[in-house]
Amino acid sequence: MRDVASEVPVETTSVWRDDNVRAVSWTAEGLLLLDQRRLPQEEVRALYADAGSVAGAIQDMVVRGAPAIGIAAAYAVVLAARDAYARVPVAWRDGMVPDLKRLAEARPTAVNLRWALERMGCAMAGLGGDPEPVLLAEARRIHEEDIAANLRMGELGADLMEEPCDVLTHCNAGSLATGGYGTALGVIRSAFRRGALGEVYADETRPWLQGARLTAWELIKDGIPVRLIADGAAAHLMKQGRVRWVIVGSDRIAANGDVANKIGTYGLAVNARYHGVRFMVVAPTSTVDMGLADGSRIPIEERSPEEVLSLSGHPVAAPGARAWNPAFDVTPAGLVDAIVTERGVVTQPNRQKMEEMMGESVDSAGGAGG
Amino acid sequence: MRDVASEVPVETTSVWRDDNVRAVSWTAEGLLLLDQRRLPQEEVRALYADAGSVAGAIQDMVVRGAPAIGIAAAYAVVLAARDAYARVPVAWRDGMVPDLKRLAEARPTAVNLRWALERMGCAMAGLGGDPEPVLLAEARRIHEEDIAANLRMGELGADLMEEPCDVLTHCNAGSLATGGYGTALGVIRSAFRRGALGEVYADETRPWLQGARLTAWELIKDGIPVRLIADGAAAHLMKQGRVRWVIVGSDRIAANGDVANKIGTYGLAVNARYHGVRFMVVAPTSTVDMGLADGSRIPIEERSPEEVLSLSGHPVAAPGARAWNPAFDVTPAGLVDAIVTERGVVTQPNRQKMEEMMGESVDSAGGAGG
Repeated sequence: MRDVASEVPVETTSVWRDDNVRAVSWTAEGLLLLDQRRLPQEEVRALYADAGSVAGAIQDMVVRGAPAIGIAAAYAVVLAARDAYARVPVAWRDGMVPDLKRLAEARPTAVNLRWALERMGCAMAGLGGDPEPVLLAEARRIHEEDIAANLRMGELGADLMEEPCDVLTHCNAGSLATGGYGTALGVIRSAFRRGALGEVYADETRPWLQGARLTAWELIKDGIPVRLIADGAAAHLMKQGRVRWVIVGSDRIAANGDVANKIGTYGLAVNARYHGVRFMVVAPTSTVDMGLADGSRIPIEERSPEEVLSLSGHPVAAPGARAWNPAFDVTPAGLVDAIVTERGVVTQPNRQKMEEMMGESVDSAGGAGG
Repeated sequence: MRDVASEVPVETTSVWRDDNVRAVSWTAEGLLLLDQRRLPQEEVRALYADAGSVAGAIQDMVVRGAPAIGIAAAYAVVLAARDAYARVPVAWRDGMVPDLKRLAEARPTAVNLRWALERMGCAMAGLGGDPEPVLLAEARRIHEEDIAANLRMGELGADLMEEPCDVLTHCNAGSLATGGYGTALGVIRSAFRRGALGEVYADETRPWLQGARLTAWELIKDGIPVRLIADGAAAHLMKQGRVRWVIVGSDRIAANGDVANKIGTYGLAVNARYHGVRFMVVAPTSTVDMGLADGSRIPIEERSPEEVLSLSGHPVAAPGARAWNPAFDVTPAGLVDAIVTERGVVTQPNRQKMEEMMGESVDSAGGAGG
């Protein structure tokens, strides 16, 4: 990989753009990733020309956010195929196996990674000759569909907000976490455009500070009023009646509507219910894993204690301190008021409602997400 | 003020010491404060020879924690009297007025500050000649009584923990926050000594990171096993059944048992109740403000947004971001399982029980708080 100036010409998707940030973009040379570890101090993009380095970028959180991880993985499959075909044209499928394995294992919780690899796998089926054109078209479709899904979810989610209000969000479920526009922040963008949004409170979201570093950054770019709070201030905020909705994204939703999302989400959901604040989860159907009966089976990634003990190389904790650093938690469906996908809204989710929503996919997904 | 080596001879209190840290100590030259802003990287003490600079140190959180603030203020009154008596011996009371005012206004939420100033005011009544000896004796008494109260609360709180378990604490309610031994951490120290404690989980406690910087530091010094978590991980920790008690200190307790404490405490209490984890507040009676009917009247200090926008002095948030930074929140009595003071334990607190506990003061406080 190499760093490139942000002015480098970037192919954009054909879908209507309504926000100012793209974390993932394809160029003829390879995949361009905005390095989210260096935001907000530096806006640096790096070019990734092979699948293995994209897997590393996913693991190291150069690119993060469940949908963005899926999209990056899809493009990485193109790179893997390009490389394998160049090496042994007649056996490019076999040549891709190590790359695909490394990609699949890059991060465990977000199901979108696996979903994207499976979809790219389907596109590979029956291919002869150079696989790149077909695979690139499929990766682009995944990317464009994600943006379209976000625009659709933005409208559906904003429909739920009856009157102008302040909202609270956690982590970053924005343009940076997706193909563009965002899931939770997509709803916030749509609500803001309608005049249905007062102010966004954003949890700073320790340890990785996605709220302070990323959510504030991209909302400021779009002129949407945002105010950061320490994660511990959320309950006090709710008690004061300042927010009517908590709006978050998700990394995996189980068949019964249990929701895995960034650590801290679950405690927010408990507090939202206690305070009569409504709780909205916004995620494309690529995040729904109907193969998991409930959230207890979602693998929760534990990351290095160093993320808690230090920040950007600056130690903050007492020398010798240990830390426990689960990256996600699971919010039970019973605490969720609405799950918004591009296929529709499921209120008070349960298995039956989730099955109904997902079952409509064959007919309506093309129209809504296509 | 000036920095002094930590080897400087320090007068210690006469009460049994059972921990390794003292944040506040008196010397013939003035008040020695361990600069808690510089922990854990540096253990630096500075000498404060006048009351105004002590007020500044309270405001800037060189010294923090409700009981420690009260003790520092009591010693500052000695310095104010020394100064006023040196300037105009016949009118030292009048000369102290500006210093007393500045001390009273240094921080609004912790009632111990006002309590200590009132108690020093009583000691001044009827004094003739040089007031310093009498006032110094009173300040020392306040300090020693605080340590004795903490030792007593440690035993009472540990009595509530029936069998060995892990616990969660928030902020720092330890030796550093008190005259010594600590309130919440005093209970933890006593429980550990009895073999009734597995491991302490400590919220890092953004924005000031008292958990990461101070609680971890002083527990490690005492050899008590501690593991830090991001504040957002507390609910996930509780859901896993890892902790049986949340144990915290307090900055002010209203007459009905509502508890003001470091921002984040209230959300923890909501989650503790939801998960069947018990919630213990440990604070000396100097923290109880029977003049306030309930917690809604406790003034909540809002500190600079910079504390949220940066982390340990390093900017973390997107340029142009705003923040809301309430330093405390209020936990209603209904979410508190036990308030532990040196006068006894109040379970399921309400106004009547609080009055009974405080009313017993004349007889039992001497014995318990010595």
